[in-house]
Amino acid sequence: MRTSLDCIPCFIRQALDVSRMITTDEKAVAAAMKKVMAAMANFDLSLTPPEAGQLIHRIIREEMKERDPYSKLKERSTKRALELAGRIKKTITGSKDPFETAVRFSIAGNIMDFGMRSEWDEKHIMASFEKAEREAIDSKAVEKLYLDIKNAKTVLVLGDNAGETVFDRLLIETFPGNADVFYAAKGSAVINDATADDAKQAGIDKVAKILSNGVDSSGTLLNKCSEEFMTVFNRADVVIAKGQGNFETLNEAPRRIYFLLQVKCAVIADFYGFSHGEWLVADSNKLKRSELK
Amino acid sequence: MRTSLDCIPCFIRQALDVSRMITTDEKAVAAAMKKVMAAMANFDLSLTPPEAGQLIHRIIREEMKERDPYSKLKERSTKRALELAGRIKKTITGSKDPFETAVRFSIAGNIMDFGMRSEWDEKHIMASFEKAEREAIDSKAVEKLYLDIKNAKTVLVLGDNAGETVFDRLLIETFPGNADVFYAAKGSAVINDATADDAKQAGIDKVAKILSNGVDSSGTLLNKCSEEFMTVFNRADVVIAKGQGNFETLNEAPRRIYFLLQVKCAVIADFYGFSHGEWLVADSNKLKRSELK
Repeated sequence: MRTSLDCIPCFIRQALDVSRMITTDEKAVAAAMKKVMAAMANFDLSLTPPEAGQLIHRIIREEMKERDPYSKLKERSTKRALELAGRIKKTITGSKDPFETAVRFSIAGNIMDFGMRSEWDEKHIMASFEKAEREAIDSKAVEKLYLDIKNAKTVLVLGDNAGETVFDRLLIETFPGNADVFYAAKGSAVINDATADDAKQAGIDKVAKILSNGVDSSGTLLNKCSEEFMTVFNRADVVIAKGQGNFETLNEAPRRIYFLLQVKCAVIADFYGFSHGEWLVADSNKLKRSELK
Repeated sequence: MRTSLDCIPCFIRQALDVSRMITTDEKAVAAAMKKVMAAMANFDLSLTPPEAGQLIHRIIREEMKERDPYSKLKERSTKRALELAGRIKKTITGSKDPFETAVRFSIAGNIMDFGMRSEWDEKHIMASFEKAEREAIDSKAVEKLYLDIKNAKTVLVLGDNAGETVFDRLLIETFPGNADVFYAAKGSAVINDATADDAKQAGIDKVAKILSNGVDSSGTLLNKCSEEFMTVFNRADVVIAKGQGNFETLNEAPRRIYFLLQVKCAVIADFYGFSHGEWLVADSNKLKRSELK
């Protein structure tokens, strides 16, 4: 999915937010912002939004010599998610359909996203978990996903944010059948996306083989991913992709993918005719673009 | 007042909004946005926010060959203001202190600003007029302004937005004494600021001599204004400056100025310790900057 012009002010704001997370030196922030704008002035808008993010966050990290600006937010997310996990696991196992309930909490966890909001907002985050059991989702798509996993030899989950990973673990624990499960993390830090280390802190290694995709971008840039990752991606019977970044980079991928995410911005909503705020369980085979842009 | 880094995402969003007001051709918008970002990458942040706006809006107007992108919003503002003026004039003349009431409605009119919001929002606009009589303002400063106007030979009002001009006219009608009144408009179109033509449509010419400042920038860039304007500016006994743009460009001007405005963004609020949303009647002699940035 190409980068919308609407992404530009949002990314510029994101660049400012992350720079100020790193330093209070406004001169250093100004220097970084100028580099970001110069780079965005030359950015090819036919590329995906995560590629714009990759460019911008690389500049900020290099300019400010800070390897992982979101590390504190990621730690806080994982810590909070682990606190919530016990109660939520009970809700899942005690529910009529544990798999669907786990899908719901995995989508609820997608709220732990610090691209669009750069500050921890406990109320906003908790509201997502509180509505997990009653939010409208496509139950038929969930059922199809369940059957596909049941019959699969290999399942690959493409992770999104740190913290959200904890709820992905709870989902993997409800997988039917005996598939080998892989969980893909980012190659290195970008925004608050989970790296292999972040995924391990969430305990993913107990339920899946953690696989780095080798890239410092949100989503999954197939033309940049490691060979090891691509082998699993291509041979997996089921691929589940979490979050907007994965949707934006894989919506036209050459294989079937189940997307699980919250639609968090108008750009992606408009692109496929989703509603802003909608909780998606989307089978890539059934996606229909609402208008070409 | 220098441009804050917080102004950057706001201006980039403003550039996108105005480009899309002019055309639905996203390729043309993309080309303009890229020029805007390249220019902002080189912008000297020690200059004022209106100078950033001047640069950006010049690029958009030139790129898109559109002399006055906000003309429809300006016409709508003046039309709506003229509709409201009859009732508001009665409120003013029937009030205990018509001058203070007129000051209040002149500040209320400052809501007709399409820099921060690019779309007409009737509810938002009307809320400003509805609270005009009860909003907290500095009555002592209003009284001082009244006495200064009473004793003045020449009063200069520096206008801000089209539409707001109508309420400035009602204010001028309550001026005590016999001063010659001048009303400064912009040299040519920038955002929805009133040009001489816009001021005339509001009937300003019936109560004041309309004076172009010669510049296509919000606020008042003294080093760019026409000689004719500067003569009046320097010799006027009282200068009243409307709106944030005038505050941002004249907060350190070498003469006393009365500022009348709504504090519409956190940047200006933080700069002087104002509250976001506050209605200001500020005597420049008494301004104290809360922190140097």
